[in-house]
Amino acid sequence: MSTGSSIGIDIGGTKISAAVVKNNEIVSDVKVVNTSNTAKGILNQVLDITAALNNSNSVDALGIATAGAVNKDNSKIMGSTGNLPNGYSYIDFKDEIEKKFELPTLLENDANAAAYAEYKTGNGISKSNVIVITLGTGVGSGVIIDGKLMRGTSGGGAECGHIVMSIEKKRKCTCGTWDCWEAYASGTGYAITANEMAANIAKDKKAGILLEKEPGNITTYDVIEGLKNNDEFAIQVHNTWEYHVLLGLVSLTNIFDPECFILSGGMAEFITYDKIQKDLSKMALISNPQILPAKAKNNAGIIGAGILATQKYGK
Amino acid sequence: MSTGSSIGIDIGGTKISAAVVKNNEIVSDVKVVNTSNTAKGILNQVLDITAALNNSNSVDALGIATAGAVNKDNSKIMGSTGNLPNGYSYIDFKDEIEKKFELPTLLENDANAAAYAEYKTGNGISKSNVIVITLGTGVGSGVIIDGKLMRGTSGGGAECGHIVMSIEKKRKCTCGTWDCWEAYASGTGYAITANEMAANIAKDKKAGILLEKEPGNITTYDVIEGLKNNDEFAIQVHNTWEYHVLLGLVSLTNIFDPECFILSGGMAEFITYDKIQKDLSKMALISNPQILPAKAKNNAGIIGAGILATQKYGK
Repeated sequence: MSTGSSIGIDIGGTKISAAVVKNNEIVSDVKVVNTSNTAKGILNQVLDITAALNNSNSVDALGIATAGAVNKDNSKIMGSTGNLPNGYSYIDFKDEIEKKFELPTLLENDANAAAYAEYKTGNGISKSNVIVITLGTGVGSGVIIDGKLMRGTSGGGAECGHIVMSIEKKRKCTCGTWDCWEAYASGTGYAITANEMAANIAKDKKAGILLEKEPGNITTYDVIEGLKNNDEFAIQVHNTWEYHVLLGLVSLTNIFDPECFILSGGMAEFITYDKIQKDLSKMALISNPQILPAKAKNNAGIIGAGILATQKYGK
Repeated sequence: MSTGSSIGIDIGGTKISAAVVKNNEIVSDVKVVNTSNTAKGILNQVLDITAALNNSNSVDALGIATAGAVNKDNSKIMGSTGNLPNGYSYIDFKDEIEKKFELPTLLENDANAAAYAEYKTGNGISKSNVIVITLGTGVGSGVIIDGKLMRGTSGGGAECGHIVMSIEKKRKCTCGTWDCWEAYASGTGYAITANEMAANIAKDKKAGILLEKEPGNITTYDVIEGLKNNDEFAIQVHNTWEYHVLLGLVSLTNIFDPECFILSGGMAEFITYDKIQKDLSKMALISNPQILPAKAKNNAGIIGAGILATQKYGK
């Protein structure tokens, strides 16, 4: 019997969380456990959670949001699983779950799953072309084109944080190359910009937070605090960071011509939406997509994975 | 009766060319006229060509490849028609043709139509995710995702030449903003790079073509000629230009994860394919798409427009 509902599980480096998702909403308790430090431990946690949710609910399928790239047919993790334990990417979750529970199972990259939740339940509702940008420690993204997640040839596409932003090698990126958007627009990039700018200010011109912190020691937090006191240096850093964010949005507008951008992640709180919207309208070649904050906050990974599983396997 | 064939017409600033396209090939004579200098003149030329081809062939539909952005449902030109006469973008080709010939008509941007021909008949055959980059006076592009042309929300998407390549304002782009990929990777950008580099070389270090040409007067042609004589300066300029091309391909690989790039346009002849392929494999985050030269040379616009018309309206 069709239930139109699926289990969604989000496997992160710190926590594994799961719930039943129906009609784009969580309809059960959210189960949360601390992520095991072994691959086998994580597999057992996922099987236990699945058993518990499957026993007390009637569901059609199961969706897993995971760190790392997922292959094109959403069946396997391909790698780049960050802070998850060794061997994690070799776990065949789909096979293990389908053997044990007869629940058809889909895997999706966690950023893609969260972006899809934002598209279906957040500020992307009623749109078809939506780009979700996560401004956090890094810059993540999910791209929805004509209502479908863009996944690329291998499944690992939509790494919009890795647009190259300089023809000169100025700033190393975590990915190993230079000057990706992430190296400027992320929270990490924010602090680098602050310290670079501080190093260029002469001793006798220093004021505000620059009197308290030496170049090299200024944190993103320091600058955000400085903004509250109208610290001149903090305002300059912030404007520079917003300009770096803007340049990436200009590139993505010219490439994708989306209906909207949705900005999520901790750094998205500090965006001046009306200013950046106005600047985008001046600089973009094609169109002026809306720039909106994210709405689907917690559990977006669970919701996205659940919706995707129901779409693919719902009876 | 289904014929599986359509008329394809390519309207350019210099010439209008047209033919019947069947099974992804031109199956009639190619008719060519010099483009009229009035909008009304162009409409009459298109109607005349259509009448001639429609009388002597049995076709299902008609496709027009045109300069400028075309709206989402391929029915109207939206603007940016470059060197075509005033009023051109207001011509309702679809309505005029359908009234007169009962041929269902589709419009497509000429770069998109040519890219689609390359995808269906050139080096994109048997692939699903293909990006065609035209390196000419500017940088054009067409993006095929899962077998479909990506057109964006308005229809004017896939302007990959307008990725921003610098956080500092270094070089003005024809689009009005700064430092688009086009401003570096195009033939125009090539000459700008040459002249910028020449201006930084001291008088007593000058050799080869720098003894013949002053900074500001060096053309792309001069440098290409210099390459044939192993001119040291020409080699440096060329390497820099190839690096600029590469950086855009890195960004597009990370964003789209395509199966291949196909490089067309006059400047694509000067790409060192094995070198740029090797560099891309080192720098891209996700994958190492093939970089191939274009195969569909002449009449790609006619062929692409014809194929798209048959796909949409073929009986």
